[in-house]
This record gives sequence, C-alpha cells and structure tokens, in this order.
Amino acid sequence: MLNDNVIDIAKNLMNRRSVTPEDEGCQEAMKDFLGTLGFNNETMVFDDTTNLWSRRGTEGPVFCFAGHTDVVPSGPESAWKTPPFTATEVDGYLHGRGAADMKGSLAAMLVATRKFVADYPDHKGSIAYLITSDEEGPFINGTTRVIDTLEARNEKITWCVVGEPSSTDEVGDIVKNGRRGSLTGDLTVKGIQGHVAYPHLAKNPVHCATPALTELAQSHWDNGNEFFPPTSFQISNINGGTGAGNVIPGELHVCFNFRFSTEVTDQELIKRVTTILDKHELDYDIKWTFNGQPFLTDSGPLLTATEKAIADVRGTPTILSTAGGTSDGRFIAPTGAQVIELGPVNATIHKIDECVKMSDLELLSDMYYGILVNLLA
Amino acid sequence: MLNDNVIDIAKNLMNRRSVTPEDEGCQEAMKDFLGTLGFNNETMVFDDTTNLWSRRGTEGPVFCFAGHTDVVPSGPESAWKTPPFTATEVDGYLHGRGAADMKGSLAAMLVATRKFVADYPDHKGSIAYLITSDEEGPFINGTTRVIDTLEARNEKITWCVVGEPSSTDEVGDIVKNGRRGSLTGDLTVKGIQGHVAYPHLAKNPVHCATPALTELAQSHWDNGNEFFPPTSFQISNINGGTGAGNVIPGELHVCFNFRFSTEVTDQELIKRVTTILDKHELDYDIKWTFNGQPFLTDSGPLLTATEKAIADVRGTPTILSTAGGTSDGRFIAPTGAQVIELGPVNATIHKIDECVKMSDLELLSDMYYGILVNLLA
Ligand SMILES: [Zn+2]
Ligand SMILES: [Zn+2]
Repeated sequence: MLNDNVIDIAKNLMNRRSVTPEDEGCQEAMKDFLGTLGFNNETMVFDDTTNLWSRRGTEGPVFCFAGHTDVVPSGPESAWKTPPFTATEVDGYLHGRGAADMKGSLAAMLVATRKFVADYPDHKGSIAYLITSDEEGPFINGTTRVIDTLEARNEKITWCVVGEPSSTDEVGDIVKNGRRGSLTGDLTVKGIQGHVAYPHLAKNPVHCATPALTELAQSHWDNGNEFFPPTSFQISNINGGTGAGNVIPGELHVCFNFRFSTEVTDQELIKRVTTILDKHELDYDIKWTFNGQPFLTDSGPLLTATEKAIADVRGTPTILSTAGGTSDGRFIAPTGAQVIELGPVNATIHKIDECVKMSDLELLSDMYYGILVNLLA
Repeated sequence: MLNDNVIDIAKNLMNRRSVTPEDEGCQEAMKDFLGTLGFNNETMVFDDTTNLWSRRGTEGPVFCFAGHTDVVPSGPESAWKTPPFTATEVDGYLHGRGAADMKGSLAAMLVATRKFVADYPDHKGSIAYLITSDEEGPFINGTTRVIDTLEARNEKITWCVVGEPSSTDEVGDIVKNGRRGSLTGDLTVKGIQGHVAYPHLAKNPVHCATPALTELAQSHWDNGNEFFPPTSFQISNINGGTGAGNVIPGELHVCFNFRFSTEVTDQELIKRVTTILDKHELDYDIKWTFNGQPFLTDSGPLLTATEKAIADVRGTPTILSTAGGTSDGRFIAPTGAQVIELGPVNATIHKIDECVKMSDLELLSDMYYGILVNLLA
C-alpha cells in the first residue's frame, strides 16, 4: 500500500521494473490509493498496454492528471552509481530510473490529491487520472486509445496537467503550454543501378536527389509565432549504396522529420514537400507518419491557476515554453481540453543516474495542490 | 599436361577452382607447357599470391601476353545450368567459371605461342608471359609487384597484349587500347549530433553536405578526347544517421569514384574536389585511394600488328575503345610499354552460366598468332 509520503510513494513506484510497455503493478497501487479517496477506477487494457482512467465525481468541469508508469530501459546497470530499479537517496536526491520521468510526478499528484480531497471533500466538478504504460514506447495502445474510448462516450476532459518533467533548473521554472507537431517522411528515390565505369547505363539516385534535399533543408517553412519557434526540417537518416565502391546505387533512402508550429498543418507540409520533389522530377515513393498536431494553451483558467499556484510556491513566476519533444498532451488537446505540462527538472531523464531533488517533489506536490485549489475548491 | 588443343587446355584450367587469390596449379600447368617451348619460368610469390613471369629469349623487343588464372566466385552453384567448375560443352559453347574471363584467353595464348615457336623458332626479340592470380581481388600482390620486380632489374616490356574479354558481339570486334583512370574518395562530413526537437543545438552534416555533393555531381571535369569519354564522377555509397527517426546524425559518410580521361590527372581532381568542399565550408576528413592512371596506346607497332591480325582473321576491322572498368594494363602501361587488351566476348563474365563460344577461342588463338607473326617473325 502507498502511504502518505511523496518520497515513499516515489520509491515504491521506482522499485518496480516497469520498462515500456510493462506496468509491474504501478497502476494497481495507484488504484488502491485513489479508491480510498472515492475515485472510480477503470482499467483499460489494449493489447500489451495497461491504462488507468480513474475519476472522482460525475460533474464537470473535469480536471485530469495525466502521466505514465512506464520508463525507458536503464542501459547497462553497471554504469549506474546506484541500482537503477532500487530507489536510493543520495545527498538529498532520489536516484533511479523514473525518478524524474515520471514516477516522482505521479507520487506528487497522489499526495496533492489526498490533501485536496481531505481539505475539500465536496469540491466542484471532478478530478481524474489518465495513466498509461506506453508513453515511452510506440504510443499506439496508450493515451490515444483511452481518449478514443472517452470520446466515444462523450466524456470530456476540461483541464489537463501532464506530469512530464518540464523544468530546467528549479522545479516550476518552466511550464510547457504547448508542443510542436511532428511529421516524419520516409522517402525512397529510385534510380537505375549500374557499374561506375558505365554511368550512361545507370541513373544515380543520389545525384538526382541532392538538389531536392538541399532545397528542403534550406526551405523556410514559416516564421513561428509568439509561442512557437519556426517549423524545422531535419534529415535523420540517409542511406544508399551496395557497400561496393564500383556500383552506382539503385535506390536512395532518406528519413526526415518536421517539428512544426501552429502556423502550418501536416497537410500543408506534405503538399510543399511533394511539390519540391516533383519539381526536381524525382522518381520516388514516400511514406508519411503523422506523430501529432501541435497544440497550444495560451490562456484560460488552467493556465491562470497553474501560474498562480507556481508563483505561490516558488515566489517567482514561471515561464511558458513550447520547446522540446512531443508528449501525450498531443492526444488530449485535440478533444478541446486545455493542456499544460508541469513536472520536475529534466536534466537527467533517459540518462544513466536519473535522479530528482527530493525537496522538488514536495514543492511539485504543493504546486499540484494549488492548481486543484485554484480550479476546484 | 596440357595438350595442343585450345578447348582441351581451356577445360583443364577451368576445372581448377582458382577463386582469387587461389591458383590451384594453373600456373604450374602453364609452366610445364611453356618450359617445353624453351621458356625460362620464374615464379614470384608475394604473400598469398602466386605470379608467373616466363620469357623465351633475352633480346628486345619484348612481346608479352598478360593475364590471370584467378576467377571470381561462382555464386550459388545450384543456380548454374552446368557445374561452374566442371567445364561443359553446350551447343558449341564452353560453360564454366573463367570460360571468358580469362582461362579461354590463356588457352588461346598458349596454342598461338606453340604454333609461332614451331613456325619461327629463331624469332626476333623475346616472348613473355606475365600471369597473376589476384587480378579479380585486391590487386596488391599481383601484376603491380611483378612489374616492380622487373623495373628494379630494368627488364622492360615493349608490347603487351592483355587477354581480358574485350569483345562485345563477336571475338575481335573491339580492342581496348586504353583505360580510364580510377580514383576513389571516402568522405566524412562532420556535424554535431542532436535531437530533432532541438536543431539549434545540433549541426546536421547531411544538410551541410548536400549543396557540395550537388556541385560535385553536376561539375564538368573535362571534355574527354578522341579516345576517352568525359571524366565521370559517381557517388557509390552514402550513409548517415543512427537509425532513430528523432536523432540528427553526427556524421555523414560518402564514397565516390572518378573514372577519368587522359585530359586530367588524379592530383588535379583531388585539388578540384577539395576546393569545392572548402568553398562550402564543410568540416570533413577525406581519404583518397588511387586505383590507376589512365593509359592509352593510340599508335605504334603493337596497335598496327593487332589491327592487321584481327582484320586477317575476321575479314573486317576491329574498333578501338577505352570504355569499361580498369584492368591490370594500368600497372604495365606506366613502364612505357604499349598495351592493348584483346579477348573473347564479355557478355557473361562474372555472371551465372559464364560461357564462351568454342570457335571464338580458335579464332582468338589465330589472332594472337597473327600478332606474334606481325611483330616478331
Ligand atoms: Zn515522460
Ligand atoms: Zn579478367
């Protein structure tokens, strides 16, 4: 059973080896905890992924904590100063996989919720938890399918705080109030294989493609806006050739990724890329993978409540940012929910010796409590 | 023992599984044959490679047959219609690995030599054989080291016929009177690895390189000349990326090859490539591998003798060409020797079901005989 202490709860969760898509009982422990607070637990299993939708109350507005119980692999355990799946205190820090991303956040949410429910048993609206165990993985059977299920029965989230580690130097210094969209293209440029001694009998796909790739790399996609940097295009992988030095390759494979602002859509980007490829008269196939629309929470009660709660705890205001990678917020925002991300310092996430300052988890719990008070008291 | 018959000799050699650098006794059989004709045999072993230098006579001019006893691998033997290392007659063709490249040529040389020595026992100058077993491999311990040895003792080849399969449709329709040079560059363009979500912290080497690669691919290196097509540049391999779709690669690897005419030198090409890479301000390493200067035999007694011998046998003139890949002629020509290549039809070389028309080997032997007569009778 999880007790009342944020550090103890974090340790309990961190000691479970819940590498994606495993949950290792984390959600069962959370269900026990939330059940005693009057939450109605609903486990949603999709293929290999266990998800939890838990709600206290039936009225709107619905405030939701969102997060994940899975963690990325530890890498070589011998490289860690402390065992990655044994939470260990070192000089005021809690070390172990998931400390910052994001079992510490889950502990802070639970403790904040217990205190809020104790202080305001008859709060407005509902409190909910949307917890998955595949955030670090293929994100196919996690948040996106829970959201599909909620949408199908017209159950709406009004405000959502995702516990991703948003902070840079001190807990709460940065809140993510949106994320760029992500779009991946897998491009195959087709040529005709041949011998380098007979270039007139071959067609070198690398030679065909480099002018188009140059134009894509140098294109200006948009100017961004107040909240988003300009859309960026990056080639992540390029491969062509048989390995032999005397053979002109028959195909060139290029994988690229867009991180895009709210100034463009995935469809506009696809159209512009296709236009460039066609202009250069390439013979090509392309497969698009859409990883999520950009989202933005630039005003409203959730942002106001969050900014006030952080300022009350820290004494200084937070900074809003949309930088960085994608998060499960991209699946929640399209339903119309306001979404922000607030969690611990992210300096060590996904790394050897992941850790979190223990006092930061206490402060984070106080911030979560403040948000609940500001919205639902 | 090899007998007098060109087909029997070709079969004897083809039945030996002499995949590079193996010789499997081919050269011993040739030594026995040449020894009975008054040749002085000298076996030169360099590391794993057996080579033969055999000479009849001590005076100049020195006419030399050059060739190789090694063959490329058969590939899957089950894909062959006949066993690759069992020479088999099929409808007037001799099937098996090495039939056309170039055990058939060796057989034709030997039979031509025996007839010439019988007809002209007191011929002018000398007849020589320069035979290696690494032509199809790394060409490090073969012809180049035999030539080094000969040069060190100031032993010179005046005229050289390489038995490479030069013909396209009928034996003797094409003589190679030169070859382009070959120069390979292994280029590493250095960037800074990073996450696609934080492009400002990374430097994408693919984006840096594509403008330079475009300029290289579109550069005009020379106009060629009467005997050579324009110099060509081809990218054979390009590789960058970790495999992950969200990582900006730290390095890009590009391998390219020049086939160049006698209008430029390797040093000029290296200088021009370096200038282009520097102009685009790339951070790069480059490793050059020089595979041979171009060579050309555009006049002289060897060419005259060869053209006459072919016309006498075929009834129609041959065509001179410098197209195609490199051959060991590139190592012989720099000594000042006149070099041409004359051999069977090359349609099936290095392929499954390699074969040669048996009557072509008889005609080829007649051509080789005619060249000997025209030069040394
Ligand atoms: Zn996370
Ligand atoms: Zn050959």
